[in-house]
Amino acid sequence: MTTVLKLGGSVITRKDRPETVDPAALDRVAASVAKIPGRTVVVHGGGSFGHHHAAEHGVSSTEGTRDDEGIRAIHGAMTELNGVVVERLADAGVPAVPVHPFSSAGRRADGTLRLATDPIGAMLREGFVPVLHGDTVVHEGAGATIVSGDELVVTLANALDADRVGVCSSVPGVYDSDGNVVGRIECFGDIENAVAGSDATDVTGGMAGKVRELLELDVPAYVFDADGLETFAGGGKPGTEIA
Amino acid sequence: MTTVLKLGGSVITRKDRPETVDPAALDRVAASVAKIPGRTVVVHGGGSFGHHHAAEHGVSSTEGTRDDEGIRAIHGAMTELNGVVVERLADAGVPAVPVHPFSSAGRRADGTLRLATDPIGAMLREGFVPVLHGDTVVHEGAGATIVSGDELVVTLANALDADRVGVCSSVPGVYDSDGNVVGRIECFGDIENAVAGSDATDVTGGMAGKVRELLELDVPAYVFDADGLETFAGGGKPGTEIA
Repeated sequence: MTTVLKLGGSVITRKDRPETVDPAALDRVAASVAKIPGRTVVVHGGGSFGHHHAAEHGVSSTEGTRDDEGIRAIHGAMTELNGVVVERLADAGVPAVPVHPFSSAGRRADGTLRLATDPIGAMLREGFVPVLHGDTVVHEGAGATIVSGDELVVTLANALDADRVGVCSSVPGVYDSDGNVVGRIECFGDIENAVAGSDATDVTGGMAGKVRELLELDVPAYVFDADGLETFAGGGKPGTEIA
Repeated sequence: MTTVLKLGGSVITRKDRPETVDPAALDRVAASVAKIPGRTVVVHGGGSFGHHHAAEHGVSSTEGTRDDEGIRAIHGAMTELNGVVVERLADAGVPAVPVHPFSSAGRRADGTLRLATDPIGAMLREGFVPVLHGDTVVHEGAGATIVSGDELVVTLANALDADRVGVCSSVPGVYDSDGNVVGRIECFGDIENAVAGSDATDVTGGMAGKVRELLELDVPAYVFDADGLETFAGGGKPGTEIA
């Protein structure tokens, strides 16, 4: 069984302090990851590490930059966070190894993402747990743009023929318009009203995008928080199932 | 014009102290790299950073390991050196960006190296100078093995259709049996006696392997030291030409 697990940046870093890991949260997450059976790929977001560098340099997934200093700053911050995540996972007994998308991915001029997944597949077969992260990637005709952890999750799940996908975020699932967690989403219409009716906060905007992307997958995806991760690691179906 | 330049680990690190960069040598090299016209890919070796970790964990280009801690140690040391090299190149005005082979390469069971060169080609077209390094790589059926900077140079030169290759080492060129630098080598027989007759030191053993690999290339390669790099950057033909 192959699992692709996204760890939201907000789960493992402290939003109130720039470039600060939340060690207790990270260790708790790492202990759960160690319990996932079979082959696992981990992807983490940027949280308080990547986002402000990206904003400062005016870079997004569509707005590129040719400022090599900016690229090094964003990539460097994400690499630093990745180093801590890999270390903490290793401390929890996970055979974690770092994989940096800037080294192995790129976008075509139309924005299509290409990621070298052969080495990642080989790492899984050899018993390692590759740990990727949101990053900058070279973009034909635009310098470099951002690739989010969510985009990597979808690309990896498809390329590696994953059996299930978990998205560990700061909320226990996708909320409906009454603020209750939706059990199951089969099409975007199931939550469209809830998303449209809510404030356009980061989490909600991000959640709508996540749901849209996860609906594209052939395999079931679950959106949950750190409590849900424990259940997910044990084979359960926490939070919201996106099928 | 596309140039692939190898910076030998012994050129940029201090052999007498573990994991210590030679800042003066590195800055001098960086100033020369900044003068190379056209598109440039840099590959550096491990010097006092990578080699002792690899030896300690019993890993080579053919002997693999499944010890994830060992892989992280070797890769981490090389990543640290790469960070310094990229920073110093950037300080010299080179739009350097880091590329880690562990993220983008792998060996098949028979040892054949596969490297994702598409992102590197795109980086060159977008005006960046990718900086790779000797590293660990996943190896089908063997865990992970070592890939040397020299092996990466040959792979890159072929894949990127390079116009010339430079190998900056600690010696001014390939020596003949009298200790003089050979001007030009067209086949391995040209230096076989010299190599066979010399002591099997690291440099000589490494040099024989380098020459064999560089002879496989369709483009001219030059082996030179830091003095020669200045000439090479200006379009000259320093040291030993391997054609």
